[in-house]
Amino acid sequence: MNFLSDTTAAAHPALLDAIAHANGGYAASYGNDPLCQRVEDRLKEVFETDLKVLFTVSGTASNALALSILCPSHGAVLCHDEAHIHRDERGAPEFFTGGAKLIPLPGAHAKIDPAALTATLNSWPQDFVHTTPPRALSVSNLNESGCAYTAGELAALTGPAKAKGLGVHFDGARFANLLAGSGMTPAQASWKAGADILSLGATKNGALAAEAVILFPSVMDRYGELQARQKRAGHMVAKMRYVAAQFEAWLTGGLWLDLASHANAMAARLADGLSAIEGVELAHPVDGNEVFVALPDAVAQTLRAAGAGFYQWPDGTARLVASWSTREDDVNALLDAARA
Amino acid sequence: MNFLSDTTAAAHPALLDAIAHANGGYAASYGNDPLCQRVEDRLKEVFETDLKVLFTVSGTASNALALSILCPSHGAVLCHDEAHIHRDERGAPEFFTGGAKLIPLPGAHAKIDPAALTATLNSWPQDFVHTTPPRALSVSNLNESGCAYTAGELAALTGPAKAKGLGVHFDGARFANLLAGSGMTPAQASWKAGADILSLGATKNGALAAEAVILFPSVMDRYGELQARQKRAGHMVAKMRYVAAQFEAWLTGGLWLDLASHANAMAARLADGLSAIEGVELAHPVDGNEVFVALPDAVAQTLRAAGAGFYQWPDGTARLVASWSTREDDVNALLDAARA
Amino acid sequence: MNFLSDTTAAAHPALLDAIAHANGGYAASYGNDPLCQRVEDRLKEVFETDLKVLFTVSGTASNALALSILCPSHGAVLCHDEAHIHRDERGAPEFFTGGAKLIPLPGAHAKIDPAALTATLNSWPQDFVHTTPPRALSVSNLNESGCAYTAGELAALTGPAKAKGLGVHFDGARFANLLAGSGMTPAQASWKAGADILSLGATKNGALAAEAVILFPSVMDRYGELQARQKRAGHMVAKMRYVAAQFEAWLTGGLWLDLASHANAMAARLADGLSAIEGVELAHPVDGNEVFVALPDAVAQTLRAAGAGFYQWPDGTARLVASWSTREDDVNALLDAARA
Amino acid sequence: MNFLSDTTAAAHPALLDAIAHANGGYAASYGNDPLCQRVEDRLKEVFETDLKVLFTVSGTASNALALSILCPSHGAVLCHDEAHIHRDERGAPEFFTGGAKLIPLPGAHAKIDPAALTATLNSWPQDFVHTTPPRALSVSNLNESGCAYTAGELAALTGPAKAKGLGVHFDGARFANLLAGSGMTPAQASWKAGADILSLGATKNGALAAEAVILFPSVMDRYGELQARQKRAGHMVAKMRYVAAQFEAWLTGGLWLDLASHANAMAARLADGLSAIEGVELAHPVDGNEVFVALPDAVAQTLRAAGAGFYQWPDGTARLVASWSTREDDVNALLDAARA
Repeated sequence: MNFLSDTTAAAHPALLDAIAHANGGYAASYGNDPLCQRVEDRLKEVFETDLKVLFTVSGTASNALALSILCPSHGAVLCHDEAHIHRDERGAPEFFTGGAKLIPLPGAHAKIDPAALTATLNSWPQDFVHTTPPRALSVSNLNESGCAYTAGELAALTGPAKAKGLGVHFDGARFANLLAGSGMTPAQASWKAGADILSLGATKNGALAAEAVILFPSVMDRYGELQARQKRAGHMVAKMRYVAAQFEAWLTGGLWLDLASHANAMAARLADGLSAIEGVELAHPVDGNEVFVALPDAVAQTLRAAGAGFYQWPDGTARLVASWSTREDDVNALLDAARA
Repeated sequence: MNFLSDTTAAAHPALLDAIAHANGGYAASYGNDPLCQRVEDRLKEVFETDLKVLFTVSGTASNALALSILCPSHGAVLCHDEAHIHRDERGAPEFFTGGAKLIPLPGAHAKIDPAALTATLNSWPQDFVHTTPPRALSVSNLNESGCAYTAGELAALTGPAKAKGLGVHFDGARFANLLAGSGMTPAQASWKAGADILSLGATKNGALAAEAVILFPSVMDRYGELQARQKRAGHMVAKMRYVAAQFEAWLTGGLWLDLASHANAMAARLADGLSAIEGVELAHPVDGNEVFVALPDAVAQTLRAAGAGFYQWPDGTARLVASWSTREDDVNALLDAARA
Repeated sequence: MNFLSDTTAAAHPALLDAIAHANGGYAASYGNDPLCQRVEDRLKEVFETDLKVLFTVSGTASNALALSILCPSHGAVLCHDEAHIHRDERGAPEFFTGGAKLIPLPGAHAKIDPAALTATLNSWPQDFVHTTPPRALSVSNLNESGCAYTAGELAALTGPAKAKGLGVHFDGARFANLLAGSGMTPAQASWKAGADILSLGATKNGALAAEAVILFPSVMDRYGELQARQKRAGHMVAKMRYVAAQFEAWLTGGLWLDLASHANAMAARLADGLSAIEGVELAHPVDGNEVFVALPDAVAQTLRAAGAGFYQWPDGTARLVASWSTREDDVNALLDAARA
Repeated sequence: MNFLSDTTAAAHPALLDAIAHANGGYAASYGNDPLCQRVEDRLKEVFETDLKVLFTVSGTASNALALSILCPSHGAVLCHDEAHIHRDERGAPEFFTGGAKLIPLPGAHAKIDPAALTATLNSWPQDFVHTTPPRALSVSNLNESGCAYTAGELAALTGPAKAKGLGVHFDGARFANLLAGSGMTPAQASWKAGADILSLGATKNGALAAEAVILFPSVMDRYGELQARQKRAGHMVAKMRYVAAQFEAWLTGGLWLDLASHANAMAARLADGLSAIEGVELAHPVDGNEVFVALPDAVAQTLRAAGAGFYQWPDGTARLVASWSTREDDVNALLDAARA
């Protein structure tokens, strides 16, 4: 009954097989091997556009690298106050940008309030030398409360931001879960919604360590600089083929969406079961594989006593995360314990 | 006949097996799993001392993180002019330290000249506010010309550096090759020779992506800050167990030394064969798995025509690198081609 | 009728005289002259404590240097959302700290709400590697709305901050105006209220360009590092005697307090006169030399037509600033125009 | 007999008068006053070209700001190993660029050896992601050994640098002394010789604290970013008119050149007198106001005993600096003492 995080899950066997398969003979290092190129080509099909891709081994690295080419050191990044880049990356964006400022925005369910965005764009001007101008907008989708922005909600953010000249970054640490839950295509959930750059995460959805920064055509001319920053940050791993191999297996035959659909279904089952219990309240809509729920103390204690693993969030709610490896039996066991 | 780099080699099967073996069930993320702890305990035995270890996925990350806790932004790092940290990491040390200065030192065969070190320590004082004071010394062993410093040579550098208060970093990207070639113990080649921190690399010697920063007791109190910097740099990967698994297999039964010995033996065979050819001159002693050799143009062309892969170094020599996966047949084939 | 800013005022003649007086013969450069030492000694008397002082030429430099020794790159600075360091310094604190995070706090009249401070100290923990820990608190007094914190209000902020191990910085760009208005002694308004470092500004109160960073005993051991950072930031001006000369004249005979008292009196007269006009509302208490006032459009237009200079603040209020050089006639003329 | 540095000299009375003259009434702050504009217009005449100017209060600030717009964090600056930016600014260029690398070049008399420059441009390529590419060349003229590059010598450096796409910075801390000694026009000694940016220093030649960064047309489009960086570094002083006033007086009637000519003449007299003494050897040609001389110990002791102030340089020579305020009597007194 481990619902601590999708990062505590193992890797899917198909990805290990792919690594083993990639392990024959010599290959050019630092991303110059045919497998890396093949994954880039595959992503162009998946996203229905030209693009450039660069692999990393952590979402924090992807996000910080992405922001470092969207925002100069003397600019600001707008994001939700609960954004992973603001709360959970130990200042990685500030580090990689050379000291840019993060301006946190409010909004229910960790979704940026469009009115707050507009007000901030107005009160932090682009052309006053004393004030740090917003240069990038970062949107997490799925977000940190497990919620999905709709296409319309994304447009309400990226439109005003782009009108002021900001670059737009989407943090897609759980991008597959978003697609599986929303029915949006990869294109609809990224560049068609205004993203210039996407952090595409596979680690939380079946990989050992495989993340990607995807540059859409609007910023593809920055790829050389991005590679320089990747190298300089120690993220140009020597034997890149093993990262690419994970992506190839993950994308093949829709595995990424199948794994995400399973995780989402487990989370939905959890949410349905828990919210039917008296005194238990869902804190946020469950749009993906995360369930945030206000648990009576007695229930929480019972669950922990039964061996259920989950985190208490800073706002007092319990976070339970399902993953590709969550079994229906685990969910049932937790619900049985909660009902007891 | 791929002698381009030890990073073009595949991973050793035992390490893949270890990853597969680690892939069962849930594990705490970010380095808090039992396997990571087990490797730290194993390294204490290997290095015959208390220590703290932190895993990364690239040597550049290890080096830059290590230097970031030895040298403040307003200090300087002394290293050889050919050092990897100076020439081949796109300014990673400058980035991670927040703008420290690297001061390159001369010396034959990529070994720092002790007299140059002493002169620099004298001409860049510790206590003159206008001048950047050296705060760290970084020594690569094996170094960038494939040469080993002896214990005495190391002492001639680390002694004066420590007398001025500098911290000492050893870049052990090819540490196993050093041990295999020199007969030094891990302790003799690290803390007993003056190192406060060691970058210990496995990727060039059989791993997929496994590197470690080892803090010896003199700097173990900086471990918390190092973890903060690791996180902030995007190098605290979520599923750390897979990095630890590689190290465990690598260290088990002396595999790391066996692989390194094989690579060294292949390099020695290469060096012996090539240097016996008229007009071919070794540029540096071959103390590990790298051979630097001045090839007559005709020989170089013949080799390339025969399909041999190797790099021409900036100084005009050819660099040929053997790895754990180099076969004696490959060496023989190259030598046959060269003699033709 | 120039009420744009106290930075548009000229310098007081006594300070120019002091510069001229300091202009005889040779003097050691970079702050090593007797005049600099004399000012430090004088400040020890003024602040009734041992201290170290370092001169700069801008408040932004003072603030950013001060924060750079209180907060590491991987830490956070807590400040009010309206703080000059957050809104008006183009990211200087992020630059000087190497990418620390500023966390903005709410509170009426630009005063940090103690409950918000406590909540933030709890939700941004000190010991969780993924989250940036607050390491410094910065309090502007007088603040950006022209308001003074009382000793009790300061204690309610610095107490909890220090209990968590944070360093405390006071931004005293208008410190003399604070003292003149509140009756607090320099000691009461600084180290006795919890400050480890004070940015002491003279430029807005009669100097040409004279600012100081004052280290109280709790952080005096960081003076050497602060000097290194001052040099590295280009703020160790060669002929420092001219900055020190300004401070000496400013402090002599209580001139600093006289000038501030005059400015405060002019602001009070402005505030009294304006608030007596129908439809005009003071936005904040007037505790120093700044008046923030909601003006009916007609009044604002009349004033501008009459040649009054003042800024419209982002919140829609008008800011009128008095300085040492504001004449009562100017105030009267503005009030006459407003009443018309 | 103070020959320690031109920074120990007082300011010229005409510059103090100009400050006093600028001290009437209100003026727009932060460089937006008419006096600042007037100086920019005047500099356009002086340099016979369009340009943009930005004032600072230290040469270190000017140099570091200039380099921060020529060189990205992932690039390198080429300079002489003795360059002030490398040896005497505590890493300011590394700080302001966000961690760019300085690559020191050799050459006699602190002049960059053109062959070394070319070799470095070749061995540090522009397009290899692992290696930091040179992006800027910085040339001090007068340089740190008091020597002048001729127009031809400058072309031999800036030509190859520009051919590789580097930006070119000239450090003109003693630019007036260069002009006075060489007969070059300001244009010939700057943009006509390949400079994109010039640090123009007045502080060493009569000012209290007045330095400028001059952007020539090739980089004028970067002025907005430069201002942002100036603000962010705390170098946009509030009452900028007082810096501009110094420049105006300095440039009026050729005062800057008169003061420099005097200093140069005093240095020449010093050099002539000293080199006529048995056992005394000039270490470098005396092209400006600095004399580097190898003194027999007995002579050095005699001079110090007689009250002469000068520094012993790291290479063992004595450095004696003349300034606008050096009197012929002082020179004579020193020579008399040396001959004794």
